[in-house]
Amino acid sequence: MEKKFKINYPNSEKIYLRGTIHPDLRVGMRKINQLPTVDKSGARRENPPIIVYDTSGPYSDPDVVIDLNKGLDKLRLPWVEGREHTQLYYAKKGVITPEMEYVAIRENMNCKELGIDTYITPEFVREEIANGRAVIPANHRHPESEPMIIGTKFLVKINTNIGNSALGSDIEEEVEKAIWSCKWGGDTIMDLSTGKNIKETREWILRNSPVPVGTVPIYQAFEKVNGKVEELNWEVFKETLIEQCEQGVDYFTIHCGIRLKNIHLADSRLTGIVSRGGSIISKWCQIHNEESFLYAHFDDICDLCRRYDVALSLGDGLRPGSVHDANDAAQFAELDTMGELVERAWAKDVQVFIEGPGHVPLHKIRENMERQIEKCHGAPFYTLGPIVTDIAPAYDHITSAVGASVIGWLGTAMLCYVTPMEHLGLPDKNDVRTGVVTYKIAAHAADLAKGHPGAMVRDNALSKARYEFRWKDQFNLSLDPEKAEEYYRKSNNTDARFCTMCGPNFCAMRISQTLNDDCQL
Amino acid sequence: MEKKFKINYPNSEKIYLRGTIHPDLRVGMRKINQLPTVDKSGARRENPPIIVYDTSGPYSDPDVVIDLNKGLDKLRLPWVEGREHTQLYYAKKGVITPEMEYVAIRENMNCKELGIDTYITPEFVREEIANGRAVIPANHRHPESEPMIIGTKFLVKINTNIGNSALGSDIEEEVEKAIWSCKWGGDTIMDLSTGKNIKETREWILRNSPVPVGTVPIYQAFEKVNGKVEELNWEVFKETLIEQCEQGVDYFTIHCGIRLKNIHLADSRLTGIVSRGGSIISKWCQIHNEESFLYAHFDDICDLCRRYDVALSLGDGLRPGSVHDANDAAQFAELDTMGELVERAWAKDVQVFIEGPGHVPLHKIRENMERQIEKCHGAPFYTLGPIVTDIAPAYDHITSAVGASVIGWLGTAMLCYVTPMEHLGLPDKNDVRTGVVTYKIAAHAADLAKGHPGAMVRDNALSKARYEFRWKDQFNLSLDPEKAEEYYRKSNNTDARFCTMCGPNFCAMRISQTLNDDCQL
Repeated sequence: MEKKFKINYPNSEKIYLRGTIHPDLRVGMRKINQLPTVDKSGARRENPPIIVYDTSGPYSDPDVVIDLNKGLDKLRLPWVEGREHTQLYYAKKGVITPEMEYVAIRENMNCKELGIDTYITPEFVREEIANGRAVIPANHRHPESEPMIIGTKFLVKINTNIGNSALGSDIEEEVEKAIWSCKWGGDTIMDLSTGKNIKETREWILRNSPVPVGTVPIYQAFEKVNGKVEELNWEVFKETLIEQCEQGVDYFTIHCGIRLKNIHLADSRLTGIVSRGGSIISKWCQIHNEESFLYAHFDDICDLCRRYDVALSLGDGLRPGSVHDANDAAQFAELDTMGELVERAWAKDVQVFIEGPGHVPLHKIRENMERQIEKCHGAPFYTLGPIVTDIAPAYDHITSAVGASVIGWLGTAMLCYVTPMEHLGLPDKNDVRTGVVTYKIAAHAADLAKGHPGAMVRDNALSKARYEFRWKDQFNLSLDPEKAEEYYRKSNNTDARFCTMCGPNFCAMRISQTLNDDCQL
Repeated sequence: MEKKFKINYPNSEKIYLRGTIHPDLRVGMRKINQLPTVDKSGARRENPPIIVYDTSGPYSDPDVVIDLNKGLDKLRLPWVEGREHTQLYYAKKGVITPEMEYVAIRENMNCKELGIDTYITPEFVREEIANGRAVIPANHRHPESEPMIIGTKFLVKINTNIGNSALGSDIEEEVEKAIWSCKWGGDTIMDLSTGKNIKETREWILRNSPVPVGTVPIYQAFEKVNGKVEELNWEVFKETLIEQCEQGVDYFTIHCGIRLKNIHLADSRLTGIVSRGGSIISKWCQIHNEESFLYAHFDDICDLCRRYDVALSLGDGLRPGSVHDANDAAQFAELDTMGELVERAWAKDVQVFIEGPGHVPLHKIRENMERQIEKCHGAPFYTLGPIVTDIAPAYDHITSAVGASVIGWLGTAMLCYVTPMEHLGLPDKNDVRTGVVTYKIAAHAADLAKGHPGAMVRDNALSKARYEFRWKDQFNLSLDPEKAEEYYRKSNNTDARFCTMCGPNFCAMRISQTLNDDCQL
């Protein structure tokens, strides 16, 4: 069992960076070693190792023994023991927690050593959390997780949805998917299970997840009332929240932005309400003809979240389900409500971020971002894509990566991945890999465009390796080394000093390298 | 042999729209028929057929017999017989050619019948060609091709590169790829063959291609001098051009923007010169220490192109090969030269467009587009991607689709596709399909964002089908019906009235449809 869950990256080492304010911190990073450059005379010049952000946790540390039954080491246990407040509380008080210094080190990669200017310091992290522009989702009861930060001034993060539905998959498969997501670079996991064994599945995932875990508690509450919308109520929901807080869930998606008066705004839509939680809550409001218990009990929800430091992800139950419905009155009415709720959460020192669409054509993306910043007072935005055209089912990882890249560039802090199975069925492991890597591309494209300190180091190293025909380094530095090498091998070409697309005589890079040399090929 | 090359789209018919100015025109379109909507009472409401742009030519017409040895019917033969001038010449003279009316009908889909406002008329097409903002690449000697237009005010087009290299593939495979590209929506094909049988391969492709075919003539010229850069000269190149003009090539990529004085600007680059033609010409200039024969003989090139109405695609030999090198002095110096050449081409009534990068991070894309419009006087832009990050070989169809969608939205008229094999090897049929569909997504996302008349009709129809659980219609309306259905079937779910991702109890769309109904699920 252990071996199966070990993560290996080619020519890479697990390294740990130390803290300064908190000297006991060990921040896991991945060091990708490179081959030397060999020039025509045979002289060798070393290429420096590239240090990259690493979401794989202990799974990629050869010295760690993995036992899924025991769970991961509880690295945050000493920090959270006896802790009674949230990161937001401490940030406002001027306290830099271990989590804050951890993410500062992690976000910087090794900028300082590379001589790259960086604004990311533990104090900067604290400020961003204090003013609500960033969130560290880290339930005291999930000490296995490595701190990470969600905020517009930081690396764009990606979330992976896993979870069984009534139709498929089992517990071990879900845990395997969680680790698989971490391997490819997923920053958080949402367990969206709706079938049997919800609680047990979640326990396994939490105890073995080095990244924060989010849920949509209404799903479990809905199971508890056997799928009868009308029987949902605050008591059932509260009981579910407590259960999940105790287990260690790091953030909750709660569709508390749906107001009774706004539901009818979705009537004129082409595709109605496409959020599961949103449709359940809307239905509940109509049946009972009153405000939802989520909205009515929002302060109670905050009180619970504060106790464990569970972050709130305000779910966009009225998000558009087609480009036709993008940026409509229903969507923006809900956003206004979320803006009110953000301030109420902050007043209770609860960390909060905002979920966004969905389906939005390119020219309407900017309005989403600007309006979110304005209405929600700078709280982080967490979007699903958006998908920019509806005509490509089976390719919605791509239709949505386009929107995700653009909205990430404009300031969205976290992107919820989409797999090729979107709209069609549940993803298998291969679909998860495709979805995660596609979203790492979107996030990284946004990081480059935002000018995140050091983000371009990896691109430059890979490009240099490519130009020098260091094929192995090109693969090792890539987001998916295995696939890059597999595709290269398809061409039956082994480490040749020309580009496999052009053949030996037509290789531009080979000819280009002879420019200024001797005027001979 | 015939059957193998027939193209079938599910539940679709080939239809032909008639011309008005030229009543003999028959513009092939694809009509996708839909199932009726059945409401709870069992009542049926018809859904209208959706008419979409169709690049598949006669291959999707069941009444046409395909014989690759004979080639396609020469539909443009009556129009071009005795014709001595270019589309640009006629446009300037105020003449609406059959090609102009053809593309006007084709671009509009059936907006008028749908009551959608459209600015696209034959006269508008003529104006855009006359002012150089659009090009119809249509060599008199390629009468098999169906007219299409490349211009910022029209649907964004995509090009597919095929062609054998010294390393692989044969003629039949290349013809098959060409037809395969047309099936999935490729608007033009570039034959980039560099191996043996260049001329024969091209002849087969041209005679069987319903879309315009472009080439990079320097490749063949380079073969003629056995790969010896120093032996290239104007005579060899001219002979090659004449040969290709006579065969019917519709547009030539020529790297005539490289000036001797600018080559050194690439010295400080991370990845030098990555254009094959660009590296050959730069090397030639250095060896001979003089301006390239392409620049020196630009007017002669135009004289040849004018005779056959071959469009010029000014190749960007100094395009960046990494995001590091984007928007640098070398790239922009070449763009300035292209701007001079555009005016010289127009003075000779030669249609011309401009090739662009390549590798550009998101925040530097806009500068590319704005500068191109300014320096090149509004001539159409034709870009390769751009790729927005270099860290994802094996996923460069995606890294580049992000850039392509954005630059298409900003005004780029044609996008050169990129497959998952980019930087790694030659694409096979499956890679071509992935690349073409990915680029149809980028082009369509741009069309929606630009507000092209009627572009959203297909999205809306598919979204409505999705919301109503008309699965078959959802597949049939999609860019890749086969793959959408294949993925859906993986979930073992057959035409159920709930979403396969959520399972029956959690289907948002199902619940949403019961809102306002009876307050019961």
